[in-house]
Amino acid sequence: MTVNTPQWLQTATQKRQSRDEAIRSFTDTYGPAQATPDVDTVDAVDTVDSILAAVSAGSVTATKLATAYISRLTEVLFADALNRAAELDAYFKEHGTVVGPLHGVPMTLKDQFDVKGYDSTLGYVGRANKEAKKDCVLVSLLRNLGAVILAKSNLPQSIMWCETENPLWGLTVHPQNPAYTPGGSSGGEGTLLALNGSLVGWGTDIGGSIRIPSHMLGLYGLKPSSGRLPYHSVSVSTEGQEHVPSVVGPMARTLSSLTTVTKAIIDAAPWTLDPRCCPLTWRPALYSSIQSRPLVVAVMRDDGVVRCHPPVARVLNDVAHKLQSAGHVLVDWEPGTLHQELIDILDQYYTADGGEDVRRDVEAGGEPYIPHVEALINRGQPISVYEYWQLNKRRLALQKKFLDLWSATKASDGRPIDIVLAPVMPHSAVPHRKCKWVGYTKVFNVVDFPAVVLPAGHVSMEFDGEAAARMHEYTPRNALDKWNWEAFDIQGMNGMPVGVQVVAGRLEEEKVLGAAKVVEGVLLGL
Amino acid sequence: MTVNTPQWLQTATQKRQSRDEAIRSFTDTYGPAQATPDVDTVDAVDTVDSILAAVSAGSVTATKLATAYISRLTEVLFADALNRAAELDAYFKEHGTVVGPLHGVPMTLKDQFDVKGYDSTLGYVGRANKEAKKDCVLVSLLRNLGAVILAKSNLPQSIMWCETENPLWGLTVHPQNPAYTPGGSSGGEGTLLALNGSLVGWGTDIGGSIRIPSHMLGLYGLKPSSGRLPYHSVSVSTEGQEHVPSVVGPMARTLSSLTTVTKAIIDAAPWTLDPRCCPLTWRPALYSSIQSRPLVVAVMRDDGVVRCHPPVARVLNDVAHKLQSAGHVLVDWEPGTLHQELIDILDQYYTADGGEDVRRDVEAGGEPYIPHVEALINRGQPISVYEYWQLNKRRLALQKKFLDLWSATKASDGRPIDIVLAPVMPHSAVPHRKCKWVGYTKVFNVVDFPAVVLPAGHVSMEFDGEAAARMHEYTPRNALDKWNWEAFDIQGMNGMPVGVQVVAGRLEEEKVLGAAKVVEGVLLGL
Repeated sequence: MTVNTPQWLQTATQKRQSRDEAIRSFTDTYGPAQATPDVDTVDAVDTVDSILAAVSAGSVTATKLATAYISRLTEVLFADALNRAAELDAYFKEHGTVVGPLHGVPMTLKDQFDVKGYDSTLGYVGRANKEAKKDCVLVSLLRNLGAVILAKSNLPQSIMWCETENPLWGLTVHPQNPAYTPGGSSGGEGTLLALNGSLVGWGTDIGGSIRIPSHMLGLYGLKPSSGRLPYHSVSVSTEGQEHVPSVVGPMARTLSSLTTVTKAIIDAAPWTLDPRCCPLTWRPALYSSIQSRPLVVAVMRDDGVVRCHPPVARVLNDVAHKLQSAGHVLVDWEPGTLHQELIDILDQYYTADGGEDVRRDVEAGGEPYIPHVEALINRGQPISVYEYWQLNKRRLALQKKFLDLWSATKASDGRPIDIVLAPVMPHSAVPHRKCKWVGYTKVFNVVDFPAVVLPAGHVSMEFDGEAAARMHEYTPRNALDKWNWEAFDIQGMNGMPVGVQVVAGRLEEEKVLGAAKVVEGVLLGL
Repeated sequence: MTVNTPQWLQTATQKRQSRDEAIRSFTDTYGPAQATPDVDTVDAVDTVDSILAAVSAGSVTATKLATAYISRLTEVLFADALNRAAELDAYFKEHGTVVGPLHGVPMTLKDQFDVKGYDSTLGYVGRANKEAKKDCVLVSLLRNLGAVILAKSNLPQSIMWCETENPLWGLTVHPQNPAYTPGGSSGGEGTLLALNGSLVGWGTDIGGSIRIPSHMLGLYGLKPSSGRLPYHSVSVSTEGQEHVPSVVGPMARTLSSLTTVTKAIIDAAPWTLDPRCCPLTWRPALYSSIQSRPLVVAVMRDDGVVRCHPPVARVLNDVAHKLQSAGHVLVDWEPGTLHQELIDILDQYYTADGGEDVRRDVEAGGEPYIPHVEALINRGQPISVYEYWQLNKRRLALQKKFLDLWSATKASDGRPIDIVLAPVMPHSAVPHRKCKWVGYTKVFNVVDFPAVVLPAGHVSMEFDGEAAARMHEYTPRNALDKWNWEAFDIQGMNGMPVGVQVVAGRLEEEKVLGAAKVVEGVLLGL
């Protein structure tokens, strides 16, 4: 570092050194993960529900859990977590009961959620060293429920990308292959979870940012409808753009963890603290009834824009086939050009300000643009507020068409559909800076329908080799489709996870989580 | 009419002639109201619930009801209503049951709601003679429930005013004094209801447009939270401005009618047809529990900007005193400057486009501006989308402050408040073009909390004379306050209705309607 080092790089270096120092002071005390005696014990407790059972039975403590998880982190970690864990243990010792349904559950947060005393950088240098003055509503509720917040995790500059890279913290890589992206924008959370560095991760999703890393890393992720989980004091770029809102949601290694934390937050009445939250209590009947009868499943195999790679298509077909074999009814999801129209609208929202919001943040820190962000903010001129209102009217008209299509899609016996089953991405994990098309996820942001991603298979030389050998027979429809088709690399992708997406009606989080359990059941042969 | 008559006036004249012709052809057949033999019979059936009882018992028919109400209309009326009524009667005759909970209930609509085959003018000449291609969601649900739509009613040019006047249809006057305004913007509905020309009127409210005419005309009106009742295909000016959204709501002469129609629409699951509606079923427990215990009522006597005229203050005090005597607990609502801050934000939304939306509509018809509209659209330059997003962030921060204030306001025993009790306007009905301050109503639009207005008294020479004589003792705080204070005229206002406003938490329509019943109960000495 010389006097000529630019300020942004000095800030980034200082932040990374602070992180490394915080990690080192911790590992000096506790040693690396493999040396921590409690890790094996803790590994047996890998869901939120089993933690609650084990803590309540006294067989594990919040301190043991926090220690085991912290020792695996690759990002910032907090002595605070151990203090909180000790408090929780003291409480349990004194009262013999847990503080709440998330007592001792180790959690991490994408670096957008305000945590008192820590930065919310959004991957911007200019937001470094600006501590949040108080916890966001989600963190405040999580603490009350007993959760232990361990760390905050990486995300791309501007957040508006499906990979995870920024000049402040650097590049987040896929645990199975460092040349590959783990997806994004909640890629830091996804990677931490995949490496057992956290038990529940909280991300955000405005176009697929929870679902894409879940898919690429073999995780479960929930993108709820807006207004179900509290967003208050979660910073985001293009903040104030509320027509296709970013939402917060959990990611985890098990579906039960996803469901338990979602229910716990809803049961905590977030609408009493967040003015955007809907006073909709958790509806147990909606969660259970969907699990007690044959589902009508609308299957979307292709969005008509970018065709799915052979493993993605195979895994989706496999899930659909198993559902049918288990007695569920399949119909086709036939949106025609409607998905494309919805996506075109969403793209206009992202940059309705001509990129000014992102540009201000990048320029405040003076750091270089990552190429994707630079392309995004230079996509066009700002529109006027009057034009913006016209955009809203068009969006609403398309949302109405989508709702009517959903209602009109029925089984042959006239039963309405319960869910849409869809791919998450047209590909599994890809090399860095190769993600280009998020149409399979972002369409559900525009209509604001909840979606769960669950792991459903892997890219496989054995099962996909034959289809791979015949790929030259396909004539791509457009440049994006061609690009994606040519990006398939069965050698490089072999073994990468593939997820599927389950979608239910707006604000039906109970239903989408219940339906995901049904899908998981048929995958496990239950 | 000469060749020099401007086009807008030709259109307005043609529309008024069409209306008059439609009324005349009807009155030629049925005669004026006083000559209709069924009017007395029908007058005994003045609530939605009593209609359902009478129709189910066979003592009144949908046709009798429609005939009686149509004969009193001052606005457009429809032969369609009689056809529909005849259909309903035939159905009842054949099946012995009603079509739905609103079977035969005569209703009218502010001229924004799309009804297939009729204009939705919004008071603009340029929107005349442009028939809607289909019914809006609300009308479609009302028809299915058995309601009979009689007519559409007047509203101000642009809708953005609390009086009712436009160059297309003209001026709507107060039934008790033609020199006075009935309020607005749902002033056509209010006047129809006050004249017994309708049983349920549907209005819209973005700043007080349901509540203000209800207050000035001695009616009941509900402004729900957005997303509770369906707005789809209801045209509005500044459409696409969704951050402080206009909402639809009912107006009626009785509270039971208001509650019954609200519940009927919610029970019809509007979220299956309107993508903006929240899937929140009617919660009977929320409606009944509020009626079964002492309420904690936060009373707002003064907004700190414009002081209420003596009769308005007296009526509010009277209601508060009666609540207290009945065992309910009063606390003070103390917003400091928060209401003013919320109102300042709302005013910026109204004209964030620099008035372009309204200007385009007025210029499309070529008609003159009414002075209030002209002032509104020339209030300032358009802001950019980026600035608009910053406005949204400020609004959200203020909404959070309001929610926190609501939660922090408690009775001395620690019980949280149930409702806020507030004035509706600082004055009763006033002469035309004299309304200037709608701060008491529009603050609840910004926070999106539901509010019911109910009639609570009248301006009275007997009770207000003494206070009127002492008004010179008060030194106004600002120009608006001075203007309002000097506008008091106990001679002209004597006998004019005065309402109060009951406000509950966001999306708690059941609670606000239940609380209004409690307030009405103490007013009636029940």
